[in-house]
Amino acid sequence: MRAKREALKTLFTAIKECKVDSDIIDLLLLINSIKGVYTTSSCSGRVGIIEEPKIGAKPLSRWLIKKHFPITFEEAKNSLKAAQKGVIFLKAQPPIFHIVGENVEIGKKLHEIGLSSGFKYTTFKALSKERVLVEINSTEYLTVPLGGDGRILISDEYLEFSINLANEMLKRSKSRLPRLEKNFKKLKEELGEDELFYELNPPMARYI
Amino acid sequence: MRAKREALKTLFTAIKECKVDSDIIDLLLLINSIKGVYTTSSCSGRVGIIEEPKIGAKPLSRWLIKKHFPITFEEAKNSLKAAQKGVIFLKAQPPIFHIVGENVEIGKKLHEIGLSSGFKYTTFKALSKERVLVEINSTEYLTVPLGGDGRILISDEYLEFSINLANEMLKRSKSRLPRLEKNFKKLKEELGEDELFYELNPPMARYI
Repeated sequence: MRAKREALKTLFTAIKECKVDSDIIDLLLLINSIKGVYTTSSCSGRVGIIEEPKIGAKPLSRWLIKKHFPITFEEAKNSLKAAQKGVIFLKAQPPIFHIVGENVEIGKKLHEIGLSSGFKYTTFKALSKERVLVEINSTEYLTVPLGGDGRILISDEYLEFSINLANEMLKRSKSRLPRLEKNFKKLKEELGEDELFYELNPPMARYI
Repeated sequence: MRAKREALKTLFTAIKECKVDSDIIDLLLLINSIKGVYTTSSCSGRVGIIEEPKIGAKPLSRWLIKKHFPITFEEAKNSLKAAQKGVIFLKAQPPIFHIVGENVEIGKKLHEIGLSSGFKYTTFKALSKERVLVEINSTEYLTVPLGGDGRILISDEYLEFSINLANEMLKRSKSRLPRLEKNFKKLKEELGEDELFYELNPPMARYI
């Protein structure tokens, strides 16, 4: 209960500070309003270009452009002017949700929802009696090296081809969000609503 | 016990038929010799070029070249001559192990081994009282589109650059295998050896 209280406060604050991807706010509020369920971190999916000075060293990376919606060739081309050091990657990543079930039974229901909504790479990330962390994830990842140390090694034609592919993958993975929402509505009918959610933020809660 | 018996028979047959990646045979035998633990499917990591007629439709895909070791520019260039239909991807994938723990406690130990051996993307894939399926996986994935419908859209220079990157990622992910093996040896000391393993295939078992 305490962990959920903290998670809810963090979520509501993040929403107010515009730090939550706008196209999944309603879905996150829905999920968190369910008894025994809360989210810890989520992303609505993205396409972008990133510089990685040292492969795998995530903290040192910097995004040249990052959007939760398809990007245009012009936006991508412009962003590459800022490339300086490290390998440059065009990346597409699907929506990812990290959701806690407050017991194993709920955890398994969350896992099943992910899979049946078409998020084929849904797994359990952590397990304990009161806390089962499920990651709802999919397979539409693209990781395309474009060059390195400021030097672009691909033609405009290839850049456009890759961007179209990245955008297509993002659209496909996002197209499952309505099904995910529908399945979480069913789960809410089954498990019931969490009074704590409504207690902590009545104004926001009124919208869902 | 029955599930492990079947899994072991499948493994030994696959080894005899040369269907198991040679560089992880010893590790797989070690893991399966541990009481309460067995593998279901694993891959030692690979680099290759694949054609996907329809993105995401795995059964329809075909590999133009696939190796468990670094590939050369010449090998890659030659393999592309066979490209006909669909999007062509250069892919790098790390070693992946699917391992069953016969109860939740063992499942958690397997999960911990994956993470502490540097396989940062280790998760639980399925959960039940007698069967916890753990996937030991890492983050070094590359998915580079090279062209489509037989037409290659990248220069030789870029192909060489991407292949070097793919090979580097494969080497990095494989470099964790010795640590994984060391951790499984410790687990064997802790949980003990499985008589069933030695009963089913004495000649092979003698080597580990």
